Amino acid sequence: MPESRESCVVALDVGGTRMKAGLVGPDARIIAERLYDTGRADGPAAVTDRIVGAVRDLRGQAAEHGLRPTGAGVVIPGIIDEAEGVVRSSANIGWTDFPLRDHLTAHTDMPVEIGHDVRAGGLAESVLGAGKGESDLLFLALGTGIAGAMILEGRPFSGGGYGGEIGHMLIDPGGYPCGCGSRGCLETVASASAVGRRYSERAGARTAAHEVAALVEACEPTALGVWTDAVEALATAILAYMTICAPARVVIGGGLAQSGETLLSPLRDLVTARTTYHRPVEIVRASLGDRAGLLGAALLGGAAAPHR
Amino acid sequence: MPESRESCVVALDVGGTRMKAGLVGPDARIIAERLYDTGRADGPAAVTDRIVGAVRDLRGQAAEHGLRPTGAGVVIPGIIDEAEGVVRSSANIGWTDFPLRDHLTAHTDMPVEIGHDVRAGGLAESVLGAGKGESDLLFLALGTGIAGAMILEGRPFSGGGYGGEIGHMLIDPGGYPCGCGSRGCLETVASASAVGRRYSERAGARTAAHEVAALVEACEPTALGVWTDAVEALATAILAYMTICAPARVVIGGGLAQSGETLLSPLRDLVTARTTYHRPVEIVRASLGDRAGLLGAALLGGAAAPHR
Repeated sequence: MPESRESCVVALDVGGTRMKAGLVGPDARIIAERLYDTGRADGPAAVTDRIVGAVRDLRGQAAEHGLRPTGAGVVIPGIIDEAEGVVRSSANIGWTDFPLRDHLTAHTDMPVEIGHDVRAGGLAESVLGAGKGESDLLFLALGTGIAGAMILEGRPFSGGGYGGEIGHMLIDPGGYPCGCGSRGCLETVASASAVGRRYSERAGARTAAHEVAALVEACEPTALGVWTDAVEALATAILAYMTICAPARVVIGGGLAQSGETLLSPLRDLVTARTTYHRPVEIVRASLGDRAGLLGAALLGGAAAPHR
Repeated sequence: MPESRESCVVALDVGGTRMKAGLVGPDARIIAERLYDTGRADGPAAVTDRIVGAVRDLRGQAAEHGLRPTGAGVVIPGIIDEAEGVVRSSANIGWTDFPLRDHLTAHTDMPVEIGHDVRAGGLAESVLGAGKGESDLLFLALGTGIAGAMILEGRPFSGGGYGGEIGHMLIDPGGYPCGCGSRGCLETVASASAVGRRYSERAGARTAAHEVAALVEACEPTALGVWTDAVEALATAILAYMTICAPARVVIGGGLAQSGETLLSPLRDLVTARTTYHRPVEIVRASLGDRAGLLGAALLGGAAAPHR
């Protein structure tokens, strides 16, 4: 008897605390969503088991929805080699050189693809969101840290898992120590966390990045100083990226992008003022919000043909 | 009657003063070489005519050698869009948005491909030279200026002609003015010309880069100062490139590379010392010398299947 049920993909975006999970149709529509605990306190093997459990659970839900799951996509933070299906390292979870793709495929009896959470988010923005139609694209996620996802000549670029680490571009050699072992990296100045921390230190009161953005709109001088440093650092990093990779569009996502034009307008002005021989670039806000990673996982799992 | 003569490709490396030309066999062996004047004083249309003339001339020579020319590759400096076959701009020669590929194909009755001189040189190093076997590669040519050729996941990357402009990476915001309209670009500190100029200014006597290298080997303090600045700047730029594109190997060519380990050894030490989360990189000297561009032109013209 021919298979007539609608197909779907199991998608999982594994964070440090929670896993966002979903069933996604071939048109990249999210049909069902669920949250699971990552449980990283129990160690990497327990997290692996929880991912296996979540994929199986969702496969069961698919059946309840009358859907036929054809594969799964799982995205995680860290240094992920998509081509080999291996997690080179994930400080967040504790894996090192772990062949997660093959492990999941073997334990879920489904074809599974793995990916990097931010690169998957960038892929989703490029296929479904604010990067649509552009083949040379940079997606920058400004959150706890800063990560970049690169689309080059229409293909997601990973550099064996080591590419796109724009958050660690050196901005200020004498600056704040960074988790990477260096100092003064972009993310120590311009991530949502850094903006909150830098303002809090100066103002002597714990303040989140979105509160700093509100103070910037009210022209509060300390907030303006912190914000200007972040915008300057982002402009410097984007120009360095333009020098090397010549994107036609930069899509800004993550927590700090929620401030919208408060961030984008001065950033655009600064980058435009410093553009000389470079290919001119559009700077726009991401459009998929915190579902970018989940949708990217779905694309990796086969929900729609990504342009590669 | 079947064609039994050995095939060859017409290759042309167009410089500001001279054009290096050659007939190249399918094994990338240079069978014959010639030099022509570029004659750029006569304007861009005259240069175009000279290129057409050189291609026809070489086709005639091929017949004399009993060879069957199957196509031509022509490489030039400037902003070259290989995919479209268009010279976006070439300050050296004076073309702007000129469809050089189609013009040459029409006027020589041969399939012609065009390319950027340094990117073609990088392609040649990656297929035939010091980059062989490595799919994530940066070729840096340190000459009058500095240009980069990028190989990413085994494919030459051009960014619509705007990529790889590593010579214009900002190193010193208060530095020397650069031809690009900015100041303190990498090439104002670390090109062969810059090393010569900076030493000459300090020592008060006109000195070429290779003479500065000899003084460095003799531990002359002014030369050491200029050299250290160049090495520092190159390390900074290479680390920024590593942050974004994660090459496994960097191949250094151009005039300054002739100093060999005098340049490469301190550069390697500095890059290694600053490598943290990056993919570790090998730094090696180019092996094709000043024929890299010509061989790259031959590869574009079909002399061997480049890995793309």
